[in-house]
Amino acid sequence: MTKVFLKKKIAHRIANGHPWIFANEVDRIDGPVTSGDTVDVFFHDEKFVGRGYINPKSQIIVRLLTRKKEQVDDNFFHQRIADAWNYRKHIGYTENCRLIFGEADEMPALIIDKFNDYFVIQTLSLGMDKWKPAIVKALQSIFNPKGIYERNDVPVRELEGLSQQKGFLSDPFDTNIVINENGLEFHVDIENGQKTGYFLDQQDNRRAIQHIVKGADVLGAFTYTGTFEIHAAHYGAKSVLGLDISENAVAQATRNAQLNKLDHIVKFEAVNAFDVLKVWAKEGRQYDVVMLDPPAFTKSRENIQKAITGYKEINLRGMKLIKNGGYLVTSSCTNLVQPELFLQTIEMAAKDARKKLRQVTFQAQASDHPIVWGMENTNYLKFLIVEVRDR
Amino acid sequence: MTKVFLKKKIAHRIANGHPWIFANEVDRIDGPVTSGDTVDVFFHDEKFVGRGYINPKSQIIVRLLTRKKEQVDDNFFHQRIADAWNYRKHIGYTENCRLIFGEADEMPALIIDKFNDYFVIQTLSLGMDKWKPAIVKALQSIFNPKGIYERNDVPVRELEGLSQQKGFLSDPFDTNIVINENGLEFHVDIENGQKTGYFLDQQDNRRAIQHIVKGADVLGAFTYTGTFEIHAAHYGAKSVLGLDISENAVAQATRNAQLNKLDHIVKFEAVNAFDVLKVWAKEGRQYDVVMLDPPAFTKSRENIQKAITGYKEINLRGMKLIKNGGYLVTSSCTNLVQPELFLQTIEMAAKDARKKLRQVTFQAQASDHPIVWGMENTNYLKFLIVEVRDR
Repeated sequence: MTKVFLKKKIAHRIANGHPWIFANEVDRIDGPVTSGDTVDVFFHDEKFVGRGYINPKSQIIVRLLTRKKEQVDDNFFHQRIADAWNYRKHIGYTENCRLIFGEADEMPALIIDKFNDYFVIQTLSLGMDKWKPAIVKALQSIFNPKGIYERNDVPVRELEGLSQQKGFLSDPFDTNIVINENGLEFHVDIENGQKTGYFLDQQDNRRAIQHIVKGADVLGAFTYTGTFEIHAAHYGAKSVLGLDISENAVAQATRNAQLNKLDHIVKFEAVNAFDVLKVWAKEGRQYDVVMLDPPAFTKSRENIQKAITGYKEINLRGMKLIKNGGYLVTSSCTNLVQPELFLQTIEMAAKDARKKLRQVTFQAQASDHPIVWGMENTNYLKFLIVEVRDR
Repeated sequence: MTKVFLKKKIAHRIANGHPWIFANEVDRIDGPVTSGDTVDVFFHDEKFVGRGYINPKSQIIVRLLTRKKEQVDDNFFHQRIADAWNYRKHIGYTENCRLIFGEADEMPALIIDKFNDYFVIQTLSLGMDKWKPAIVKALQSIFNPKGIYERNDVPVRELEGLSQQKGFLSDPFDTNIVINENGLEFHVDIENGQKTGYFLDQQDNRRAIQHIVKGADVLGAFTYTGTFEIHAAHYGAKSVLGLDISENAVAQATRNAQLNKLDHIVKFEAVNAFDVLKVWAKEGRQYDVVMLDPPAFTKSRENIQKAITGYKEINLRGMKLIKNGGYLVTSSCTNLVQPELFLQTIEMAAKDARKKLRQVTFQAQASDHPIVWGMENTNYLKFLIVEVRDR
C-alpha cells in the first residue's frame, strides 16, 4: 500500500484525531498515487497515523478513515454504518435521523440522511464517492429500504474533480415522501428540496419552542418548509405567520400546514424578510414570539464579517417586533460563526435595539449530528431562545 | 435620597447592566449612609445609573435593583415576584421552580425556590434581608402558600454582617414534603437538606438521560438525593448503583427509590466515589452509563486549578468504567469553571484515559435559572453527555 509521510512539524490537529491531511503537510509519498486509493499515513518518525483515501487533486490530500491498521473494504463500511445506526438508536432516534454525519462518524465527506424507509446520500469527496457501491450495499443489507437517492448536486464536489449529479441508487421511487416529526407530518421532496430535502438538524430544537408559543402571536422568517411555524401552531400558538422569499417554499410550507390541518392558524407569505421586518417594525407591529432561521449568509472565512453583519441586522429587526417580555428564537447554521461569536452578535443587536435579554435555551444541532471537539465543522448550528425586554 | 457617585473610570460591567457596585468604584457619597437603605447611583457626569440598596460593610457597596427612577417599596417587590412567576409559567414550569434567581431576576442576593405549595427563601445580603417582610407578603398574596421557610444558614451572609439563621416565615408546617418531577416523586427536606433542600437546577437535565439509560447498567456518583439514579431506573435502566459519601444522603436516596417503587432496580452505597471508582476501574468493572454530579470542589477563584484537577480526575476515573460505546453524563456546578474550560478539562481526562468522545448534549442549568450574559454567576451549571469510545 502507498505510504504517505508527514512533515516533522505538523499540526496538533492530526495528532489529536482530526482526519484531514492537507497537501502542504506531506513530506513525501512512497508508492503510486491513484486518486481514491487507500493509503497509509505515517508521522515523520515512521509511527503509524492512520489509513485513509488519497486525492492529489484536492487540497485535503488524504482523509483518514481509521487510526487502526484495519482493512478498508465493503465490510468496513457496513460496520461503520451499523455502528452509526446503533448510536442513533441509543440516543432515541427511530424514524428519521442523520445516519452518517461525515467526520463525526469517522466517514469523512459522507452524509446519509434517513427519512423513515428512504435514504439520501451525499459523497462529497472522490475517495468516498468510490465507495458508493459499498455504502449502498450496506444500507440495503441493514435497512432493506424502500429507496436510496443521491443528492450529489453540490458544488463542493468540483473541488475534488467530481461532477455534480443526482439520481436513484436503488429502484426508482416516488421522491415526494412524508415523514413524522414530533407528532406532525411533513412532506419531503428528496429530489428537489434543499440539500438532502429536509433539515433534520433542527428536529430537537423545534420541540424547544413548545411552551413559549402557547397562546402567542408568532412570526417566523426564513421559514422554508414551514416546520418551525407548524410546530408553533401545534404547540398552541394563537396565530403564526411564516415568511420566505421563495414562492416554492411558501407553497411547500402551506402544503405542510394543510397536511397537519393547521392551515387555519399558520399562514405563509412570499416576501423578503429583511425588508418587511424593517417596515413592520416602523409600523409598530408586535409579536409575542419572533423566530429567525436564516441561511448561512457566507460560506467563506473571508466573509465572516458579512455573516455577522447579516445576523446582527436580522436579529435587530426581529427584536424590534417583539412585545416587552416576549421571546426571540434565533438560529445560525454556519460553523464559521462559532457559538461565542454568535452570542456576542445577538448581544450587539440587543444593544442597538435597546433591549435586554435573558437566555432561556442555547443549544446546538440535534444529537444525531454529534459534535467532535476539535473538528470545527461538526459544531455548526446555534439555536438560541432569549426573553426580550425593553431596556 | 442618598446619592452615590461613581468614579470617572468605571468598569464597562456597570454600564452594560451588571448590578454590582464595588466600594472601590465609588468616588463620593452625598447624604447619610444607613446600611440597607435605598440609594441612587450616578455616573461621574451625574447621569443616573440606577437605584439599589447600600451596605458599607460589604465589598459590594451597592446592588442595583432597577435602572429606572421607580419607587422601591412593597409593591415593587410584589411586581418583581409576579413577573418572575409569569416568566417561569411561560417557559413551562408549573409545580416546582426557582422562582427568583437573584441577579437574573433583577433581585440581587435573593433566592426563592418554589416546591409546589411551599417556598424556601434565601436573603444573602443585608439590603435584601431588610425586604424580607415585603417578599413574604408578596408570596402570600400571589400564591397563598402552605408554607414559607428561610434557609439563611449560609456563611456568605456573614460578609454582609448578617447572622446565619433558618426558620419559618409563615405558620409552622411539616418541612418534609414531597414534590413531583418528570413523573416521579421526591422527598424534600426543607429544613435540613442541602441549600434550599433540593437541586432544581438539574430538573430539565435529568430528562436528557432518558434514551441512553434504556436497558443499561448505570453507575452514579455524588448521588445526594438519588434523583438522577431514580430517573435512570424510571427510564428503563437494567440496574442502577448510586454512590454518596454521606450515610444520610444514601438513606434519603433510598427512601426516594422506595417512594417510586424502584428500589428493586436502584441501590445506593455510602462510599467515597473518588476512591471506589479508582478501585473498580482496576478491577475491570464496566458500566454502560456513568453519571457524575460532583460538588463544586472550590468556592474561590484562587483555587480554580484545584477544581479543575478534581473534575479531571473524577471524570478520568468515571470514563475508565465505561464500556466501549457507552455514555458519560457529567456536570459541574461552579461558575468559576466556565463552559469552555469545563469541556477542555473533560477532553484532558479523555486523553489520559485513552478514550475518544462525541458530544451528545451540552447544556446549562434549567431555564428557570435564566442566564444573563455578562453576569458570570448566572452561568454556572454545565451538563454534558458524551459517548465514550476506546481510542
